[in-house]
Amino acid sequence: MNKKELFEQIKIKKSFLCVGLDTDIQKIPTHLLHEVDPVFSFNKAIIDATSPFTVAYKPNTAFYEENGAKGWISLEKTIRYIKENYPEIFVIADAKRGDIGNTSAKYASAFFEKLGADAITVAPYMGFDSVSPFLNHKDKWVILLALTSNSGSADFQYISSNNKSLFEIVLAKSATWATDDQMMFVVGATHPEEFKQIRAIVPDHFLLVPGIGAQGGDLQAVAENGLNSLCGLLVNSSRGIIYKSDKEDFAIQASFEAEKIQSEMSYILSEKGLI
Amino acid sequence: MNKKELFEQIKIKKSFLCVGLDTDIQKIPTHLLHEVDPVFSFNKAIIDATSPFTVAYKPNTAFYEENGAKGWISLEKTIRYIKENYPEIFVIADAKRGDIGNTSAKYASAFFEKLGADAITVAPYMGFDSVSPFLNHKDKWVILLALTSNSGSADFQYISSNNKSLFEIVLAKSATWATDDQMMFVVGATHPEEFKQIRAIVPDHFLLVPGIGAQGGDLQAVAENGLNSLCGLLVNSSRGIIYKSDKEDFAIQASFEAEKIQSEMSYILSEKGLI
Repeated sequence: MNKKELFEQIKIKKSFLCVGLDTDIQKIPTHLLHEVDPVFSFNKAIIDATSPFTVAYKPNTAFYEENGAKGWISLEKTIRYIKENYPEIFVIADAKRGDIGNTSAKYASAFFEKLGADAITVAPYMGFDSVSPFLNHKDKWVILLALTSNSGSADFQYISSNNKSLFEIVLAKSATWATDDQMMFVVGATHPEEFKQIRAIVPDHFLLVPGIGAQGGDLQAVAENGLNSLCGLLVNSSRGIIYKSDKEDFAIQASFEAEKIQSEMSYILSEKGLI
Repeated sequence: MNKKELFEQIKIKKSFLCVGLDTDIQKIPTHLLHEVDPVFSFNKAIIDATSPFTVAYKPNTAFYEENGAKGWISLEKTIRYIKENYPEIFVIADAKRGDIGNTSAKYASAFFEKLGADAITVAPYMGFDSVSPFLNHKDKWVILLALTSNSGSADFQYISSNNKSLFEIVLAKSATWATDDQMMFVVGATHPEEFKQIRAIVPDHFLLVPGIGAQGGDLQAVAENGLNSLCGLLVNSSRGIIYKSDKEDFAIQASFEAEKIQSEMSYILSEKGLI
């Protein structure tokens, strides 16, 4: 999926919501534990219920790897289910990988070819040759960590060199490695005040924005300085949607929550003249 | 395994060699492809052949994930095989993970509890709360990326702030997060000139040193400035050992290569009065 196709979906759905499938076997409704693959059953129900309101899903690999090979099967089935039933929805493997060149090439193959994800999150620390193998796959995306949503983002990402913070240096340098049809950046919703300076560096890139909901970020504040002429934002909520209820009504409650965010997004997009 | 126990093993084996199990199904001898699990069969033979000369094994998760759930099973079996047959050998999951706190906790559970690794490599970009969940597991280790062996290490790791390079800032700050019985650092053998300044910051920590062999690093140069009073080095070779031959003699050739490096290490340890 390229950038224009993604924007088309945003216009159709009037939404730039990404639902994070951080599916924790210890948190899903207990009645699902009798299923053959409870994690997949949970995801399937969440996907069916939220798909009208979302343009992207983002399974985080940690929650699958915790269940070993069985978890990897749940992840494979989840991505296949989305691609078979909702091929217009963008799938992000939130894996935060990155290694020396020949090894990153293996991760690219694992996530793009084997799992069929459209995009993978990548950590920038190891530099160009840790990122470039992911760019050799047509219509696939690297989503590079720039300014993350967690408190630890303060430890290294704001280190200053020649009056530039590390996250600004990462943005400026990595933006030269690929087009904005191959690369996005992770910018946490918990840093709304930085969106203006980030847009000055990467005006045209999509930003994947985690941190609304459980982490406390604010959608309006993000949209204010983050939107661009092709929307340019995918705003993620995970726990705030998928664990809205731990009862039998979990899927319908998740859909209510997704719809609530989508309504707000629709209003924002319309206000900005994007739809 | 704690630091002293690791040093005991180094003295017994007269070796600080770590063998990287970067097992690529496209590179293993073709006669193994008839086996039920060719990757595990390859690893088992390599482990049996090289175990007298090595104190650590380091499977890199990329090579297993490329084979999907099947690859994850090969990884589980490989670590279990080492732990059941060579419990004295240190197992490093080279996974380069790191995420927000609640997610890193899942990775810690995946790698320490489910897979049974002794250590995991972690990327530092996301800061303290992405690392700390890995420190809550007794006798388990975080091996944090500091100065990596690849060419991309030049992109961000040398960025200078107040006359300190980013890798030096990462070392100094993260060394306050844990004891040297819980944390090691990755320092590439391709940067022998930096070992002296690194030892000035972290004199007592173990360093995991990739990059000899296929990547061109030099063991003597690393040892010269990297050794400390408890050895303090685990030097890794992957491709240089495990792909020494692609014929039926692959395991014996790997053992010859491992023994060659071990002999050199034995000489170095003896020269330095450590054995």
